[in-house]
Amino acid sequence: MKKDEPVAPSDVVQTSETGSAGGPARAELVLSVNGRRLWSRLQEMADVGAMPESDGGGISRPSFGPAHAEAVRKVAGWMREAGLEVGLDATGNLIGLLRGRDADEPAIGVGSHLDTVPNGGAFDGALGVLAALEAVQTMAERGERPRHSVAVLGFADEEGNTFGIGVLSAQLWCDEIPPEGYGELVDAEGRTLIERVAAFDVADVPAVERPRLRAYVEAHVEQGPVLEQGGRRAAAVESIVGIARSTVVFRGIANHAGTTPMEARRDASWAGSELVLAVRELALASGGLLVGTVGVFEVSPGATNVVPGSVRLRVELRSADPDLLQKTSRAVDLAAATAAERHGLGLETAAWHVAPPVAMDTTIFSAICHAIEGAGLPRYSMPSWAGHDAKVMARHLPTGMVFVPSIAGVSHAPDERTDAEDCAIAAEILRRTILRLDVVA
Amino acid sequence: MKKDEPVAPSDVVQTSETGSAGGPARAELVLSVNGRRLWSRLQEMADVGAMPESDGGGISRPSFGPAHAEAVRKVAGWMREAGLEVGLDATGNLIGLLRGRDADEPAIGVGSHLDTVPNGGAFDGALGVLAALEAVQTMAERGERPRHSVAVLGFADEEGNTFGIGVLSAQLWCDEIPPEGYGELVDAEGRTLIERVAAFDVADVPAVERPRLRAYVEAHVEQGPVLEQGGRRAAAVESIVGIARSTVVFRGIANHAGTTPMEARRDASWAGSELVLAVRELALASGGLLVGTVGVFEVSPGATNVVPGSVRLRVELRSADPDLLQKTSRAVDLAAATAAERHGLGLETAAWHVAPPVAMDTTIFSAICHAIEGAGLPRYSMPSWAGHDAKVMARHLPTGMVFVPSIAGVSHAPDERTDAEDCAIAAEILRRTILRLDVVA
Repeated sequence: MKKDEPVAPSDVVQTSETGSAGGPARAELVLSVNGRRLWSRLQEMADVGAMPESDGGGISRPSFGPAHAEAVRKVAGWMREAGLEVGLDATGNLIGLLRGRDADEPAIGVGSHLDTVPNGGAFDGALGVLAALEAVQTMAERGERPRHSVAVLGFADEEGNTFGIGVLSAQLWCDEIPPEGYGELVDAEGRTLIERVAAFDVADVPAVERPRLRAYVEAHVEQGPVLEQGGRRAAAVESIVGIARSTVVFRGIANHAGTTPMEARRDASWAGSELVLAVRELALASGGLLVGTVGVFEVSPGATNVVPGSVRLRVELRSADPDLLQKTSRAVDLAAATAAERHGLGLETAAWHVAPPVAMDTTIFSAICHAIEGAGLPRYSMPSWAGHDAKVMARHLPTGMVFVPSIAGVSHAPDERTDAEDCAIAAEILRRTILRLDVVA
Repeated sequence: MKKDEPVAPSDVVQTSETGSAGGPARAELVLSVNGRRLWSRLQEMADVGAMPESDGGGISRPSFGPAHAEAVRKVAGWMREAGLEVGLDATGNLIGLLRGRDADEPAIGVGSHLDTVPNGGAFDGALGVLAALEAVQTMAERGERPRHSVAVLGFADEEGNTFGIGVLSAQLWCDEIPPEGYGELVDAEGRTLIERVAAFDVADVPAVERPRLRAYVEAHVEQGPVLEQGGRRAAAVESIVGIARSTVVFRGIANHAGTTPMEARRDASWAGSELVLAVRELALASGGLLVGTVGVFEVSPGATNVVPGSVRLRVELRSADPDLLQKTSRAVDLAAATAAERHGLGLETAAWHVAPPVAMDTTIFSAICHAIEGAGLPRYSMPSWAGHDAKVMARHLPTGMVFVPSIAGVSHAPDERTDAEDCAIAAEILRRTILRLDVVA
């Protein structure tokens, strides 16, 4: 189907098998959005920044690069097609505005990001932007003109690959980094954010002021296996988990791996290994309320015939429960101290990133739950175990999120997949949420 | 003391405190060698290839480099001073020959190596060469002319830093690598062994044939803490331990460290950590008969927010007991398989280096034990936990080794130290061993 083919807006009632243990056996889907149009756009977007297999495949759309600019031009075109007023703000975020009846009121923001990780997938970010556009376009086509304006947002730099700062765009949007700081954001080649935006080739998309927002809603793929494994097709996000990251260094003595008797060794990898397993035990003991990862385990000097003299670990804990996060952080510190003492090692620990959990707005959460039910699906909610633009936005305005399943839980990879119908479900839930927020928010 | 100052050869009886628990309270040292001359030469050699602190300090004398050539010229000079016939063989080994009364008989070889690891110490290798020279020079000065010739050997390339092959010189000496293979030995800059020897600037040291050897004896620093901790000053080496090295790869799934529930993870670091601790337990359970090290633990992708998808370990076991070595290798494989199965991981294991233990010759071992007692010290023996030129030589001819203490067990480092008197002890034991072998071997 060509993207400019006219589509008759209509409520489509579908019967869908979900069929997984624990989930409902059948659901009557109620979808008014144009799922084929959305899927076609997602596929077209997947070509923007597509990488050859020899370079790892998938999609590489780092912010402010040529592929990102092409994505902005493409989405801007679709936005105009949908009747939106299109513009680019001072930090490269694409804005498509559907004017509400009461244009003086702050707008309802709906969107996600247009950049990707290197060799990433076609849904992380893109789905949230294109589902928002589909929701608004369907509203326009159905004559559902809201009282409040609706701003479809395509954030520029969520993945943090250009300036080394995750969820940067939302921080810029909310003035967590104010305009006087833009010159200090420097990419790997020494170019500032201001220079990158000035050189950003988005053709005829004009510069605009950011609209004031009354709320922010984001649809996203789950990036984990929970929905699929539970036979669920959508979830309202309860909160975005907090993250505690620390660096742990055990210092022993690098010594000859032959001539040093076992009892005389100060082998840093012994304590490092014990800490890896302790983090696992602590996370498992939470019963699903906390995850713990030791993603970095660097041995020095790292030679076959030398006893490890030092080991540097990075420990990451995530939980929606701030008390559990703090309690477990302390338990990890204690486990590290115990392991160091047991093996006669020096120990340095430094917490370098602590972000508390962020709860979603209850009014928006409730609107999303209603929207899920309105789409013919059972109400379901879960925390978001990953960070999103919404995590920053929630610090400043009422914010909510919708999840749809990631097949096999894969994300940030070329084989990131979400079922076409689940993408349509995301758009339908956004549409219903916007309509409800237009009344209650 | 200047090195050309004449020294009256004489038996010097010293009283020495050894004073450590488990060792003898007092020993009457009987040293006929010139300890001051030996110490002075060791200090002079420590300047050859000395590195500035800013480059890591210690001594860097890679084989066939300028510092190694300077070391050869210097030792050749001292050899001539001692009345030896000096020459360089086809692969850069320095030979100083004391002609015996029966010049047709194969010679007794005594020596070690002149190269060092980068930023190494002043005793590893150099002590064995200079103690051998001191032993032979003392014999000459005392009129102890043996029936067999004695060849003082300064091997060129024991550490393996130039051609990437450990104990290379001894392998060349024994034709384990025959002359037709010399052109295949290539350094990091593409130069062959033949080219390196041809460019080796050793001034007026003439090329000679390698003498036939009837035995090989090497003095070396222990490179571990056993002698010092036991209050011992010398040991006859019983055997050189066998080494079994394997690479173990656990393959899991690299996944998002937030969105992947603990139960869904295939975290390769869990099995890696369990194997590190299993190797430790197996080695400790041997009661000092085996050491085990996991010196390499590489996590992929190695990012804070990604579940470790694969871990590559290198496991090294050493033991003088071939059965224990084999049994423990199998136990490590089993522990790896158990850990992989427990965590649902793929497993690849590959043994890439298996060298069986090498026993020292019993006649030479006995001669060394007598020499230790003759020097006024209690008889003591231990395995060598490190490889040496002697390990290769022992495959081809009767071979023995003498150890003297390494202070704090440190070696392959700038602060490698051995007490001056212990260096003299090494020379005295060599002298007594040579004299005994001259009769019995």
